[in-house]
Amino acid sequence: MRVYFDNAASAPMWEEAANEMFKYLKDFYGNPSSVHDFGRKLKVVLENSRKTVAEILNASPYEIIFTSGATEGNNWVIRSAIETLGIKNIITSPLEHNSVFKTIKSLAELYGVNVHYLSVDQEGNISLSELKELLKKYDNVLVSLMFVNNEIGNLYNIKALAEVAKKHNAYFHTDAVQGVGVYKIDLQELPVDFLVSSAHKFGGPKGSGFVFKRDDIKLNPMIIGGSHEFKYRAGTENLAGIVGMAKALEITYENLDKKYEHLKELKELFLSELKQLPDVYVNGNENYSSPAIVNVSLPPVYENGRAWLMLLDMNGIAVSSGSACSSGTTKESHVLKAMNLPAERKNFSVRFSFGPQNTKEEILY
Amino acid sequence: MRVYFDNAASAPMWEEAANEMFKYLKDFYGNPSSVHDFGRKLKVVLENSRKTVAEILNASPYEIIFTSGATEGNNWVIRSAIETLGIKNIITSPLEHNSVFKTIKSLAELYGVNVHYLSVDQEGNISLSELKELLKKYDNVLVSLMFVNNEIGNLYNIKALAEVAKKHNAYFHTDAVQGVGVYKIDLQELPVDFLVSSAHKFGGPKGSGFVFKRDDIKLNPMIIGGSHEFKYRAGTENLAGIVGMAKALEITYENLDKKYEHLKELKELFLSELKQLPDVYVNGNENYSSPAIVNVSLPPVYENGRAWLMLLDMNGIAVSSGSACSSGTTKESHVLKAMNLPAERKNFSVRFSFGPQNTKEEILY
Repeated sequence: MRVYFDNAASAPMWEEAANEMFKYLKDFYGNPSSVHDFGRKLKVVLENSRKTVAEILNASPYEIIFTSGATEGNNWVIRSAIETLGIKNIITSPLEHNSVFKTIKSLAELYGVNVHYLSVDQEGNISLSELKELLKKYDNVLVSLMFVNNEIGNLYNIKALAEVAKKHNAYFHTDAVQGVGVYKIDLQELPVDFLVSSAHKFGGPKGSGFVFKRDDIKLNPMIIGGSHEFKYRAGTENLAGIVGMAKALEITYENLDKKYEHLKELKELFLSELKQLPDVYVNGNENYSSPAIVNVSLPPVYENGRAWLMLLDMNGIAVSSGSACSSGTTKESHVLKAMNLPAERKNFSVRFSFGPQNTKEEILY
Repeated sequence: MRVYFDNAASAPMWEEAANEMFKYLKDFYGNPSSVHDFGRKLKVVLENSRKTVAEILNASPYEIIFTSGATEGNNWVIRSAIETLGIKNIITSPLEHNSVFKTIKSLAELYGVNVHYLSVDQEGNISLSELKELLKKYDNVLVSLMFVNNEIGNLYNIKALAEVAKKHNAYFHTDAVQGVGVYKIDLQELPVDFLVSSAHKFGGPKGSGFVFKRDDIKLNPMIIGGSHEFKYRAGTENLAGIVGMAKALEITYENLDKKYEHLKELKELFLSELKQLPDVYVNGNENYSSPAIVNVSLPPVYENGRAWLMLLDMNGIAVSSGSACSSGTTKESHVLKAMNLPAERKNFSVRFSFGPQNTKEEILY
């Protein structure tokens, strides 16, 4: 039996989305920016995909900018906010994905911006009141906090956090890579300025993503050139990738409640089985977390956490240690480190992440 | 009859490349950075694609960095050269593609870098001796000159230009989007530091490209995050797009001489037929240009050049005016403007660009 419990790293594509993409690789060609018949047909497809994404999130099509993925999206928002909006202070957490965490660190140094990190408890919780205090103290602020933590699964109350930021005239950015496709997101209700997403986390293709950018905010492009994407992102559009992403989002949001319920059942079964074993700890805030992600510390085997991955892999079960996006490194997770977990938990932590295709049989296996 | 003469804007995909890509959308999933079986398999495919690209260009695999396309590639090289290599002067031409031309303009302002433009004659020629003079005058220089001009097809002597730059310790960047796939490129012979390419110009997918970066030069990533692409470009790799690009490059470079000969024959036939008509001018340097691109000024019809596009489009023939990559704008081409062409030629110029699938019958039609 082969079991894929690494959906948070990259999910299998919905077959229908892959088939739809294939059409735009094989049967259609041309440049969506060309004014002739070949180009115009692709332009219509491009804009229909944008409409699909916008409608699902209750945004305007003008607010959806297609990118090559969430890492580009996060980089663009952070870099251009500094360049364009005169950001002098960034408030963030030490639990962000590297595409936010390292980007903020590196660009703050380059552009002379101050970074303020919220403190974090052993469950990975952050505090709204601490954010309030910081916002009172600083001006020209960008707040950057993720929707769901990719390693421990914690769900943050982005609505409450963003509301506080708005009240203090700060811009709010959320890396929603693990949120889109699991939670219903209504961008008329959620007062974020920037929301970043990646297709391959919800059954779309790798190399495709989008940024929601609220319409009244103007940013520099980070990738400069032609007038694509309302002049926010130059470069011939990855049309097939965009079509595949829009289709995957559509499929994901059909009967989302049912899919959510399924993930919840999987996680509950998994935890109830696992907790019968000795020396198992769940990392993160178990009561306020995504049903797709479980991070557990298992009893020591061999020298370090890697051994668990190997053991599981040898039995056909794919999981991650720490962030699966960080290119096969076995370095200590900056997330678990920030949570100040005891060494024996940190070193033997494994992330299981579930997708709609997973079954109870797989969990029991 | 439908005739596609806009290959320089975007070429049809090689069917075999599309089929190969489809496998990695439908049958394989996972993240190439994950250490388990699913991930490792993809990692092998990723590195094999890199090897394929490197071998064709006689480079080392470590010198090939995958990107989302040439616009990103050009932006990365220019921005990071300024940030990392302490570039204070950029020598370039006013004929570059917007992903170079506008990027240099915009970043030079942001980072306080001086830009020096080579002068250009009415055929779009630049002068090696002028480059030499500028290189004598300035230090900390990046030279950025394209391989083949995308609008007029001029082939520049990149080897000679780069040799001069090397002699003066300047870095040399070439946007080779219209060169790769048409010319044999040997990066052991060609002393460029950075060469940028895009898959969809040689029958690969849109949204995929690569940068050759000489191994001894270290650049900051522009897209920061995980440790992908030797830490030069973060973000989960667009695996299917990379596979499709490598396959397309492979097919293109099989019997390249024959394909080149075919393009040359098409262009010669096209020009010999066209020149029998009155008031037709070829723009650019006809004697030193790519066989894939012809830019001609046709006799005035209606109010402006757009009318030619419409007329041709109505007859099923797809062509471009100016740069096809600039998102359907009808703005004056900055290239033809820099060449200082008489208004009646500038306004009625049309670009025909050929691909290996085009036929003599199409030319005669």
